[in-house]
Formats: sequence, C-alpha cells, structure tokens
Amino acid sequence: MTGAGVDPHQIGRELGGAVVTVDPGLPPAVREGVRELTGRPVGTGAGPRVHVGPSVPELAAEERLLWLHSTNAGVDALLSSLSPWPPGTLLTRTVGRMGERIGQYVLAWALAELQDIPGFLRQQASRTWNRLATEPADGTLAVVFGTGGIGAGVAAALGRCGIRTVGVARTPRRVPGFDDVLRLGSPAGPDGPSAELAAALAEARWVVDALPLTPETDGLFGPGLFGAMSGATFFNVGRGATVRTDALAQALEDGRVAHAVLDVLPEEPAPPTSPAWDLPRTTLTSHSAGPTTATDITTDFSAAWHSLRVGRLPTLAVHPTAGY
Amino acid sequence: MTGAGVDPHQIGRELGGAVVTVDPGLPPAVREGVRELTGRPVGTGAGPRVHVGPSVPELAAEERLLWLHSTNAGVDALLSSLSPWPPGTLLTRTVGRMGERIGQYVLAWALAELQDIPGFLRQQASRTWNRLATEPADGTLAVVFGTGGIGAGVAAALGRCGIRTVGVARTPRRVPGFDDVLRLGSPAGPDGPSAELAAALAEARWVVDALPLTPETDGLFGPGLFGAMSGATFFNVGRGATVRTDALAQALEDGRVAHAVLDVLPEEPAPPTSPAWDLPRTTLTSHSAGPTTATDITTDFSAAWHSLRVGRLPTLAVHPTAGY
Repeated sequence: MTGAGVDPHQIGRELGGAVVTVDPGLPPAVREGVRELTGRPVGTGAGPRVHVGPSVPELAAEERLLWLHSTNAGVDALLSSLSPWPPGTLLTRTVGRMGERIGQYVLAWALAELQDIPGFLRQQASRTWNRLATEPADGTLAVVFGTGGIGAGVAAALGRCGIRTVGVARTPRRVPGFDDVLRLGSPAGPDGPSAELAAALAEARWVVDALPLTPETDGLFGPGLFGAMSGATFFNVGRGATVRTDALAQALEDGRVAHAVLDVLPEEPAPPTSPAWDLPRTTLTSHSAGPTTATDITTDFSAAWHSLRVGRLPTLAVHPTAGY
Repeated sequence: MTGAGVDPHQIGRELGGAVVTVDPGLPPAVREGVRELTGRPVGTGAGPRVHVGPSVPELAAEERLLWLHSTNAGVDALLSSLSPWPPGTLLTRTVGRMGERIGQYVLAWALAELQDIPGFLRQQASRTWNRLATEPADGTLAVVFGTGGIGAGVAAALGRCGIRTVGVARTPRRVPGFDDVLRLGSPAGPDGPSAELAAALAEARWVVDALPLTPETDGLFGPGLFGAMSGATFFNVGRGATVRTDALAQALEDGRVAHAVLDVLPEEPAPPTSPAWDLPRTTLTSHSAGPTTATDITTDFSAAWHSLRVGRLPTLAVHPTAGY
C-alpha cells in the first residue's frame, strides 16, 4: 500500500484484463490514443473498469472501478462527488504542460501591467500619443503559493525574466526554479501568516495562488494574507474557492492589492450579475490559463499506464485525503 | 585614426583641459553625475568643448567641439543637423539598458497577443465569461532586423521563452542570443530579399525592426519585405522612417502582416489626424519602449570617458558615415 491508498502491483496485474472506457465528450483523439496504448478496442471486455474522463463514470452493479484517470488537474469536485473515495481505486490526474502554459499566462499579465498594455490600448482607441511610464520586471519579487507542477511552471517563467521567486508550501524544501521556499503554516488562523511569510508578502509585487482546493486551502486567501500585502498584484490560477471574494474586494479597496487577475472563481462560469465583475482593477480570464489538449490527456494516461505495468505508483496519482 | 574618424589618444589627452557642458533640459542627476566623474564644475574652463545632450550645442566662434555624447540611442537626426560631421569630433551615444528594456517590451506584446489579453480586457468590460484560445510561445520563430544592443536584447528576451530567433545584419556573424544570423543584402532592391531571408520571413510569427536609420535602411520595410511575410506580427522598435507606412497598410490589408505594434513613426508625435492611427490591427506605443534614465546617460558617458583616458575608442562611438 502507498500514500495514495492503492497497491500499484495489484492494479498493474489487473490491467491486462480491464475494460477501458473513455468519456464520450472528449475529443476523438483521446479515444484513439487510449486504444493504441492499451491495444484493445475502447469499452470491450468484462474485467474491472479503467476510465478516462472528467468525472466518475456510472457503473453497473457488478462493476468495480479499478482506476480513474481524470482529464483535469483539479480533482476537488471529483473527490466530493464520491466521498469517501473507494479504497483500492486509483485516481490519477492530467497536468500536461499546464505548468508551462500557466507560467506564460502569469508572465504575460505581469509584463502587460509593467508595460501598461491596457493603457496603450486605451490610447490607441482615442488616437492619443503620450508617453506612458513602463517598468522593467527584473528584481521584482513574486510569492507563489503552491510548489507543484503549476507553481514551479510559474516560478520558472517569471524567473527567466529576472523576477525573484519565493514559493510557499505545506512542506518547505528546495524546489528547482524557486529562489526560496517558505512554510505555509496556518495563515488563515488567528495568528495569521508567519513573520517570514508576512515580510515576503509585504515586499511582493506579485502574489500567485497556484493551490489545489483542499480543506486546508479552502478560503485561505482572506483578511490575514491580503492584510499582509502592500500593493501586490494578485493572480489566482489555482482554485476559485481558495480565495474569499469579500476579503479580496476589501484588499482592492484598501490598495493592499493593486490589481487582480483571476482565472478561476468559486462559481464558474460567472454570470453577468456575479459580484466578481465588480471587483475594481480586476480582470477575469474565464478559466483559460491552462488549457488541456488531447495529447496532454493521453501522454499523462500513458505514463501512468506504463508505471503501473511495472508495479510503480504513477507520479500523477492523487492522495484522496490530501486532495491532490 | 579609427573607423569613427577620430583619434582616441588625442581626445584622451585633451580631456584634462576640456570644458564639459550638459544640456539644461536634462535631469539634475545627469549634471551631478558628470560633475563627479570629470572632477570639475560643469561649464567652466576654456579648452575644447565636451557636451552631453540630445543635440549639437551652439558654439562660440572660437570654440571647437571635441566630443558630443548623445543622450539618445538613435543619432540620425543629430547627424543630419551637422552634415558633414566635423572630422576629429567624437560622437558617442547612450544605449543604457535599452536592449533589455526593449526586449521586455517586445516579449510583453508578443505574449499579450498569444494570451489574447486585449480579448480578455474586452470581455471584462462587457462582463462576459467565455474561454478564449491561448497559444504557447515556445517554438514560434522571430526574425529580428538588427543585431546590435537592441536587437540582441530582443532576441535574449524572446529566446528565454523558447522562441527561436534569427537575426538579420549587414555583416552576418555569430551573435550571442541568436540561433542564426542572415545577411541583410538589399531586400528593398529589385531582387527583393534573398531566398534564405524570404523563407525565414514566410515562417516568422514575429518580425522585429530594431534598425538604426541610415541611407541603407531608409524605407527598407516596403512591399519586398512585407510581401515575403505570411501573417507575422510586425514590431518597429528601431526608427520610424525604416518603414513605409503605405506598404505596411497594404500588408495589413492583405493579411501578410497579422498585427503591428509600432513604438516609432516617421513623424512623432502622431497627431490625432495621422493616418498611422487608421492602420488596422495596429497599436502605437508613443516611443515608450526604451526609456533612458539619468543613470543610463551617466553610465555610458562614464564608460566612454574612461576608455578615452586610456586612449581606447569607446564601445558606443558612432561611425558618422555608417550612422550608428
């Protein structure tokens, strides 16, 4: 048994006779990739079930779910839909090149702010030729919450432009791409963030939320964390519910947050009546920062399949109690 | 004598007794930096004249201009104002951190296009939540005209995001930061660009004009070069008059140029009636890409001063006939 609560040797042995299914809403290329990898037509056979899709499949009474490969990186909704998670069922997720993609997204919006791209677009619309002040990125500080694939991708992209990067993780350790990693602790608790984290947030020009949604991170960005910032630009590329929208609104009001760029919200899609549209100096980007392609899904599924065939736990296996 | 037509040993010997003046329109920090470096009050003495400023100073009848340190990178207007350039007068220019600054500018606008930042800003204004397609930068090709400090700064910034970079120079040679350098040739002539350059332009996602204005580059970007492009985004961070606005308008019309971002124009500032505002899918950025600070001016002046004191031609000496 492993931290993910499953026995990879046992699952590997059962793969040979498993029925592999693919969610019908996925692009045909996923079905084709899965067929080629597994060497059998999708949906045939009578063994335990392996499923590739965004959610838990419906199972017949006699069926047993051996392995679910999620086509998303965030699995919070999936885990809530089947709680407790059945012991012995493996859950893996798709990360793909999401770290690189989301890294470029954060870098693009940070540089757009420094180069005042919105200001020049407004000047263009009004045929106005005025010099606008621009700033170099080098030497500014980014604090990135989450040091997994997505946080590390963000740090790598920002670091290449000379931005200093401090990661924040449950278990601090050296992570490539980060200049330093601090301990998350319980910043939403009564003591607020540690002195070390508060100092980094006070200096930060950029604060990036790249956290999964777990009981520990739910509403983590509240008055405590926002209150420690002094004019940072806040990005949420993690999960919407890690941020308390009321606290963000207050921080934008106070100037503790200068700008916000939110790719995710607690409720998506945001209807035109959502109060999120009323946040000042904020742009919503409609959950577009980390698109997943058919190749991402089949590549990550394939890597997991090959790991299991040799009895190893896949790198992208989810620990159901940790939630990522 | 050197390629710049001056004798650095001779100028170095005369510096001790020179009168150093600073254009009164410059920030006080420049005057202060020059005073500290030269060890004498600005504007005192009776020797030959050393001037720091954007243009040729007025000289009394008996005065001789020994050295003009231009506070700009582009010296075309300055050279036209005093033609022919007096033999024996040194001209140096200020480049500062302009390569890095303009590199970040080009990278910012390229990433803004890939991440559809203008599209998300429009969605924000209309409270619309729709996923918009974004693209990764890696693997796209940039062709950068000019491989001096500014072109190299652009290549370095783009290369760090995985963009392949091909430079175009009068004299092709290996230049750090460029994957390859092609020969400029006479692309505006009747034969058009070389086959090699035409192939690069056809593949290019980004074409960057980082050229100085010389008789050779005047109007260089015309039907020949634009006709070789297939949907590139065109940046002008060099000099406005290197581009024929009518040819660019036609290329935007034909789709040979997909977007244009112009920091410089043949006539600046552009009045609201300028036809440049009517170019489709174009943004003008008001000559803001490469701001020069007081520190940039004094740092480059200081480096040139120290070179001359030991009889070496400064790195930023202008060759008046080449024009840069």
